[in-house]
Amino acid sequence: MTDQLQQRILAELEKIVLIDPHTHINPHAPASQTLADIMGYHYYTELAHSAGLDRLDIEEPGLDPKEKVGRIVGQLDALDNTIQVSWLLEMCVAFFDFEEDAITADNWEPLYDRAAEKMAAADWESQVLQQSGLEQVFLTNDFDDPLEGFDTSRYVPCLRTDDLVFHLTKAETRRRLAEATGIEAADAKSLETALGKLFEHFTGRGARACAISLPPDFEPVSVDASTADAVLGAIASGRELSREDAKIASQFVFWTLAGLCTEHRLPFDLMIGVNRGVYEEGVYQGQDLFDQRTSLFIYRRLFNAFPRVTFPISVLAESSNAELVAYSWIFPNVVTNGHWWYSNIPTYIESHCRSRLEAVPRNKQIGYYSDMYKLEFALPKFGMYRRILAGLLARDFVIARRWSEKRAVDLGRQVLRGNVERIFANR
Amino acid sequence: MTDQLQQRILAELEKIVLIDPHTHINPHAPASQTLADIMGYHYYTELAHSAGLDRLDIEEPGLDPKEKVGRIVGQLDALDNTIQVSWLLEMCVAFFDFEEDAITADNWEPLYDRAAEKMAAADWESQVLQQSGLEQVFLTNDFDDPLEGFDTSRYVPCLRTDDLVFHLTKAETRRRLAEATGIEAADAKSLETALGKLFEHFTGRGARACAISLPPDFEPVSVDASTADAVLGAIASGRELSREDAKIASQFVFWTLAGLCTEHRLPFDLMIGVNRGVYEEGVYQGQDLFDQRTSLFIYRRLFNAFPRVTFPISVLAESSNAELVAYSWIFPNVVTNGHWWYSNIPTYIESHCRSRLEAVPRNKQIGYYSDMYKLEFALPKFGMYRRILAGLLARDFVIARRWSEKRAVDLGRQVLRGNVERIFANR
Amino acid sequence: MTDQLQQRILAELEKIVLIDPHTHINPHAPASQTLADIMGYHYYTELAHSAGLDRLDIEEPGLDPKEKVGRIVGQLDALDNTIQVSWLLEMCVAFFDFEEDAITADNWEPLYDRAAEKMAAADWESQVLQQSGLEQVFLTNDFDDPLEGFDTSRYVPCLRTDDLVFHLTKAETRRRLAEATGIEAADAKSLETALGKLFEHFTGRGARACAISLPPDFEPVSVDASTADAVLGAIASGRELSREDAKIASQFVFWTLAGLCTEHRLPFDLMIGVNRGVYEEGVYQGQDLFDQRTSLFIYRRLFNAFPRVTFPISVLAESSNAELVAYSWIFPNVVTNGHWWYSNIPTYIESHCRSRLEAVPRNKQIGYYSDMYKLEFALPKFGMYRRILAGLLARDFVIARRWSEKRAVDLGRQVLRGNVERIFANR
Repeated sequence: MTDQLQQRILAELEKIVLIDPHTHINPHAPASQTLADIMGYHYYTELAHSAGLDRLDIEEPGLDPKEKVGRIVGQLDALDNTIQVSWLLEMCVAFFDFEEDAITADNWEPLYDRAAEKMAAADWESQVLQQSGLEQVFLTNDFDDPLEGFDTSRYVPCLRTDDLVFHLTKAETRRRLAEATGIEAADAKSLETALGKLFEHFTGRGARACAISLPPDFEPVSVDASTADAVLGAIASGRELSREDAKIASQFVFWTLAGLCTEHRLPFDLMIGVNRGVYEEGVYQGQDLFDQRTSLFIYRRLFNAFPRVTFPISVLAESSNAELVAYSWIFPNVVTNGHWWYSNIPTYIESHCRSRLEAVPRNKQIGYYSDMYKLEFALPKFGMYRRILAGLLARDFVIARRWSEKRAVDLGRQVLRGNVERIFANR
Repeated sequence: MTDQLQQRILAELEKIVLIDPHTHINPHAPASQTLADIMGYHYYTELAHSAGLDRLDIEEPGLDPKEKVGRIVGQLDALDNTIQVSWLLEMCVAFFDFEEDAITADNWEPLYDRAAEKMAAADWESQVLQQSGLEQVFLTNDFDDPLEGFDTSRYVPCLRTDDLVFHLTKAETRRRLAEATGIEAADAKSLETALGKLFEHFTGRGARACAISLPPDFEPVSVDASTADAVLGAIASGRELSREDAKIASQFVFWTLAGLCTEHRLPFDLMIGVNRGVYEEGVYQGQDLFDQRTSLFIYRRLFNAFPRVTFPISVLAESSNAELVAYSWIFPNVVTNGHWWYSNIPTYIESHCRSRLEAVPRNKQIGYYSDMYKLEFALPKFGMYRRILAGLLARDFVIARRWSEKRAVDLGRQVLRGNVERIFANR
Repeated sequence: MTDQLQQRILAELEKIVLIDPHTHINPHAPASQTLADIMGYHYYTELAHSAGLDRLDIEEPGLDPKEKVGRIVGQLDALDNTIQVSWLLEMCVAFFDFEEDAITADNWEPLYDRAAEKMAAADWESQVLQQSGLEQVFLTNDFDDPLEGFDTSRYVPCLRTDDLVFHLTKAETRRRLAEATGIEAADAKSLETALGKLFEHFTGRGARACAISLPPDFEPVSVDASTADAVLGAIASGRELSREDAKIASQFVFWTLAGLCTEHRLPFDLMIGVNRGVYEEGVYQGQDLFDQRTSLFIYRRLFNAFPRVTFPISVLAESSNAELVAYSWIFPNVVTNGHWWYSNIPTYIESHCRSRLEAVPRNKQIGYYSDMYKLEFALPKFGMYRRILAGLLARDFVIARRWSEKRAVDLGRQVLRGNVERIFANR
């Protein structure tokens, strides 16, 4: 009975046309061209490498896409338990009429060819969007992205600020900033002006969020202008910064961005907890991990100082979710945002989603985003989330709290779609 | 079948008359007078504020109770998913014959009036206790509470020591202490004497516990008398203390209290993990949060030094429960105590309660307390806990371990009531 | 339906003959001689003590085994909820034809005698192995164990290195090392040689792993030879070491062991997170606890520096599992290993096992080990694990992902047995 109830709720949730509020889609090449675009996703390359495939077998220069897929397929039997491989299978079934239980050495070549054939269709991108029930896709753009040559009402720009906050000490970053803004930022004031120009450019092209990923030990604090001037002057003159001064530079840029979010009425997506390059010899994008010893407590000054900025927050460590629930429950400007990366597996989604539904105001929950690099991934990822959500709505709301099915579906709709529209509204 | 089993166990658990071992009830006004007393509970004001209601709309000086309820009701549709609002609904159904699915702008006024009418009954307090199956309610009294004018066998005093440990540096605290004890505490010895007088006063009036809430970074250690003398002297002379000296003062008072608990055979309730005033602009009592980076390891000296004091421990961070299970499993004087605040939601209660039932001796588990400010809250809060407990007893004991239903209910009874009686026995 | 499916899968898993990859079995006395050997296991003594039994009642010198069992039985009614006591009951039912619901003051004596009688059989050890479906048992040997007088193909040696890493500063440890190797280790080079001799001895006797348990704050780093020489020289000369120097000594020995694991192709079992002697007055082996504030991030240098060493990792803190999942997902040389000690209860096993099955390559998961001191414990402990595993395979794979039952059982077999064989292969 519960099963049928869950199925009915799921069927309703599947009718909801989606806005995906965080992806890494390249709007100039949003869909895949071959299965290598799908299986080259770091989830597959890193898991295949972790299970035994040599990194160079995957990243050999000039490697033919089909050959690459063949090599990864050779490792799939060690990964078929993972939820990531279940996404792969689901994509192949949904998009490429694949009918086997597993992708194996014996059946992958016809699959590869069939996929390439379908992907070659002129309207493949539209087919994928249509079949996935996907209307709008948020991007994660470099700060110097011209944001031209694509439909920004379908592919919504978001200003990614990692480079500005953590790599301003690099000459290349400063060169890019100067080129994008026409300003050589050598002190607090000129840097603020330059960053303001980026915001103008982005919001002028329909940007809906500023975004950044942060290491577990980053602590946002306000930096006074004279301290910032000294450090930025040192950077501009090319001097090597001490660790402490580099931290100050990061803090100053970050705090300035939050101020600009207030001014330009942009939500500031914080993705908290990633340590970059932990596994030095890992495959591309398969080197980052986390340290659970972090806390939203170190963000308290930020949340207090910028009450008019909405902070959609993603946490990487499983144990951080309970803090996110509590901070979203208390701070009006903190909202929960999806299930990120290492926490994006059903065991954790189920518990995190349930706790949020129990304790965070329903208008402050952004249910899910795909984080995808290619459009085909929205279908299985949102599918996974919707099934979990349907199960929770059935059990905790319709059965335990005697809600009507309609009311439960309405809650699902708000979390899946309504809040995305409202929180990232075009102002 | 499991469902029916769970219902049968629940029915038995519902027959158990309760002692609520931790509340913030004012014994001079234990029950509510209007719905504003219920909806003014910080759970509703902070969630309403978090969801968008202005703090000043809630805390406007001189605000009429009915008007206040109306304003919060206006925000309820953004909160109806929360377990806290499910408590509200459950109270309205149980106490005020409310029959709607939700409290809305259209139906709240008759509800308000109906509630006021019922609450005006001379025996409203007794009605609530009776209907809630509640026999005895532990209080949390200020250290200088005269403990007069109420029935201490129904409303059991407990000595709250937060002010003594963390605010002795304030002149007001010292004035209150001097007034309550007749002693001007200016060194270790006189402070011990003063604190001893408080214990005598409290135990003389039937107190059953000493209690305190602690920040995540508080580390109990013994402070030698001469160090304490120096710091207490500085406090008495009104000198500003360094952070380090203030910490020493806190540690000295805390350690002295533990010694007095030994002497007076009082359990010492530790509520571990709250950071006060994190959200500075939050509503009253809606400003506190936590930092998960804490450990019971920092309490090891205390647990070793006071083997004859029972420490019922509540943890605020979800991730602290696994430590609490292990420390209660090993230390004879550590017992688990309820599900506190941000951990008081079904997702966490279910997992925490299950782990405790699996690994902590059954005579060392205090199942639940309401933490309520008004009597009406015991009903839905204990109701939530009992349903979860009944589910675990059914699944993990009757089904998985083939216990008889009677035996499972006996375990439930011990956790819900028996241990409270024994651990907080009047000595 | 799910129940029957789970039972069918469980029945298949129960046919798998086991290798237990981590125990504390004494190969010269692997099985119990009386119930006191079973109930003297620290799980029972520490829980009985925690529930109220005096330590001296348990550890009274010269205490008769039967009397000891009687005393612990007297406390069992306060522990019968625990999963550990469910193991006890399961052993008594399976091995000693016990038919009661609980072990009580009224029925324990006949049980004791019946057990003693059965254990007196010449082939008791074989009976237990046979009935438990256990083929091979890994040991945890002191570094100076002669490894003689037992069948090393049944009882597989593993080199335990705690003493070397953490107690080299003790004269007794150095004496034992000198005796075992004929080398007085007084500098980096001679210590490496001595440790190398231990590896030769162990691998020559069929050892399959090097193993160590580590406190939560241990951070593996490389120590250069001259620094090591200075510290080791100080140790050899009997000088008292500073905390810092003792840490360097530990780090040097640990890093050297990892190098020898590369050379001798031994996996290095890391059991991360235990603080020793936290409860000073606890019963034997019932004094250790943990501090959740730890991270695998502090092992990054090790994992990067020794890519050819496999590190099967056990974590003690519940919250560490999410890190273990992520680090095993990314690092080819990190694999998950069982459910250790305070995390070895169904609540945590279920969530940890589920998350691993969802995100770690299937060839990198060592499902379970018993950690037992006496052979009889494998039956209930592996039984507990298999039931949980069967439930997850049924629900998450057969039902949710439509796997065939055979395919699900194959995954179970790999996790339970196949990976143990491959990862700890005799090279």
